[in-house]
Amino acid sequence: MATVKLLSDAEADAIPAVKAVFDDIRATRKSDFVNNFWRGLANDPAALKRTWEGLKDVMTGETALPPAVQEMIYIAVSTANGCSYCIHSHTAAAKAKGMTDEQHAELLAIIGLAGQTNHLVAGMQIPVDPEFLVES
Amino acid sequence: MATVKLLSDAEADAIPAVKAVFDDIRATRKSDFVNNFWRGLANDPAALKRTWEGLKDVMTGETALPPAVQEMIYIAVSTANGCSYCIHSHTAAAKAKGMTDEQHAELLAIIGLAGQTNHLVAGMQIPVDPEFLVES
Amino acid sequence: MATVKLLSDAEADAIPAVKAVFDDIRATRKSDFVNNFWRGLANDPAALKRTWEGLKDVMTGETALPPAVQEMIYIAVSTANGCSYCIHSHTAAAKAKGMTDEQHAELLAIIGLAGQTNHLVAGMQIPVDPEFLVES
Amino acid sequence: MATVKLLSDAEADAIPAVKAVFDDIRATRKSDFVNNFWRGLANDPAALKRTWEGLKDVMTGETALPPAVQEMIYIAVSTANGCSYCIHSHTAAAKAKGMTDEQHAELLAIIGLAGQTNHLVAGMQIPVDPEFLVES
Amino acid sequence: MATVKLLSDAEADAIPAVKAVFDDIRATRKSDFVNNFWRGLANDPAALKRTWEGLKDVMTGETALPPAVQEMIYIAVSTANGCSYCIHSHTAAAKAKGMTDEQHAELLAIIGLAGQTNHLVAGMQIPVDPEFLVES
Amino acid sequence: MATVKLLSDAEADAIPAVKAVFDDIRATRKSDFVNNFWRGLANDPAALKRTWEGLKDVMTGETALPPAVQEMIYIAVSTANGCSYCIHSHTAAAKAKGMTDEQHAELLAIIGLAGQTNHLVAGMQIPVDPEFLVES
Repeated sequence: MATVKLLSDAEADAIPAVKAVFDDIRATRKSDFVNNFWRGLANDPAALKRTWEGLKDVMTGETALPPAVQEMIYIAVSTANGCSYCIHSHTAAAKAKGMTDEQHAELLAIIGLAGQTNHLVAGMQIPVDPEFLVES
Repeated sequence: MATVKLLSDAEADAIPAVKAVFDDIRATRKSDFVNNFWRGLANDPAALKRTWEGLKDVMTGETALPPAVQEMIYIAVSTANGCSYCIHSHTAAAKAKGMTDEQHAELLAIIGLAGQTNHLVAGMQIPVDPEFLVES
Repeated sequence: MATVKLLSDAEADAIPAVKAVFDDIRATRKSDFVNNFWRGLANDPAALKRTWEGLKDVMTGETALPPAVQEMIYIAVSTANGCSYCIHSHTAAAKAKGMTDEQHAELLAIIGLAGQTNHLVAGMQIPVDPEFLVES
Repeated sequence: MATVKLLSDAEADAIPAVKAVFDDIRATRKSDFVNNFWRGLANDPAALKRTWEGLKDVMTGETALPPAVQEMIYIAVSTANGCSYCIHSHTAAAKAKGMTDEQHAELLAIIGLAGQTNHLVAGMQIPVDPEFLVES
Repeated sequence: MATVKLLSDAEADAIPAVKAVFDDIRATRKSDFVNNFWRGLANDPAALKRTWEGLKDVMTGETALPPAVQEMIYIAVSTANGCSYCIHSHTAAAKAKGMTDEQHAELLAIIGLAGQTNHLVAGMQIPVDPEFLVES
Repeated sequence: MATVKLLSDAEADAIPAVKAVFDDIRATRKSDFVNNFWRGLANDPAALKRTWEGLKDVMTGETALPPAVQEMIYIAVSTANGCSYCIHSHTAAAKAKGMTDEQHAELLAIIGLAGQTNHLVAGMQIPVDPEFLVES
């Protein structure tokens, strides 16, 4: 159902630039599983490499936020954008990185609240309080 | 510029149901400042009370996530929804609750990444991997 | 601040295809006021005519919904899309067509609720109940 | 395919706080059917209660807008947000509350128009006419 | 799964106003295939005619942009709006009109970049540079 | 009004990693002007470098699409996302790269059409035609 081909392992292995990224994904994540997003992106090896490296820079190594929190932020954006694939994949990742059921429930509650107040603010066209504009 | 009147303190004080919520906002937040969102919502005292109580339930008291993380999730949703008022007010709140500059930068980087991969996933119409659908 | 020129009355009058539409807007609305949206669209007379005629077909004459309800639906879509201009213009129109303050408050409350439940549904990825899929 | 478990009746009955809300949903709607949205929310009984009570306050009892109009506004927001579940459930509800085929067609036409003019306004960055900013 | 009936050829042929549009779609596109979008819209023959004529005006005949570029712009909007049907149909159309695999890859890369920078701009609330506001 | 500081030239010059990117922006664009987006991003030199290099890879050098077309695709995404800054900056860029007034008008018309049909498709929940799912 995708608009691009999802590369199999055999197809990926046949393109050195793709194989190199898939190998790095596997090594970084310590898992053999390469999910469909990367298999679709692999049609454009430069985009694959650029996107993976951007994501690796931000989401791995020394980070300012705990890994589960990073994934929860990712879920929040993906939910507001209605990206079903992204919600599924980052919910799985957040759980794998330690998000508890209580945290998941609270995350959903905050996302719901934000959806509500975002819409109320827009409908009322509330002007920004000068107090929020203190020098940043 | 709002589509509804923003109630002044004098106007809010004249409506007991509004005054009660404004008093609770001030007591809960330990601050005299009531921001414009509540002043707009105050045109509908039932909506004001319901929205404030929903927000208080989720965002205060015993929470599963640290207060600054809650606000960062709120920023993430508000950014994806393009709600300028909400981004300003929750960025101010996140800073007040301890978000560091490094965390703010990482939050923005994750929001940007999510914007990118959400759009790539949508454009390619990537199907959800069965691995993400393990029984929840 | 627009990305296109907003045509003045003199400029509009100089282009017969634009003048004809502006005249029809004024006659249909029984008002001399032509708002900025049409002045921007007037850079492309064919788009101006097509858009105005589409809008006139749906929103005027014999309609299945009362005029104020039509405008409230327009506000609802515009709010979810975050279109500030559209929220302002259709709120003004809804009031002119009889939307009461109570209806405006209820409209905003429904928009807020929908924002909340839309986000909750997306975050939980709720599957459609078969009951909603009865033959249409 | 949900990211949370959808509670069965047996599971819901085993949690008193959930059972109380499900009973109220059934009593309020005079129907045995509890749709999946509530079954997903039931993982967080406080969110279930808060969301149901908010929705009941706004959408039932004495309302400023007819029930079918309320549902049409809900459909409008859900469409702009691309929430497939919400579009299906509120279209079913609107029909049950009396929305005619003619009204449904006009609703869709207005939603389409609003989508078009929202995008045109954004693309042209039309400034708000001062006439729309009269004191509210 | 649609919220409206999708008219079959027999049903469409029985309504002269629908048949006329379907005939024009087939003649304009030099193909017998009428896709589901038009079959759904056909429930409202006036909307069918208005929407088809608007689309025909813009997308066919003498155009300022090559047909494949028009379709790529359509894909870009549809992706940002998360419209799965639209992404599929306009990707098929763009390929039929000559979009190469390299152009498709670059289109997706630009859409991804725009998603990223749109989110970064919103999160940082960057003010418009005066240089971009030169008289238009 | 931004949520982050916009770095002046003096501040940028004081941070070697920022200065290097600003120099490359100026050299690549053959212009002294560095717009506010980069000045905001400069608070996170790694994000600045990553974002600029991603954009430079896709939008400059040998491209599959003409530069003005690339910018029009960027405008299309930014419009659907309601990113005012992005619409202004990429409209200026598209004009600088040769977008004619006729192409701008057609671009806006297509964006408007897509907004309309995206919303109609969503409201009707049109299923994807199997013809669009031919092996990609």
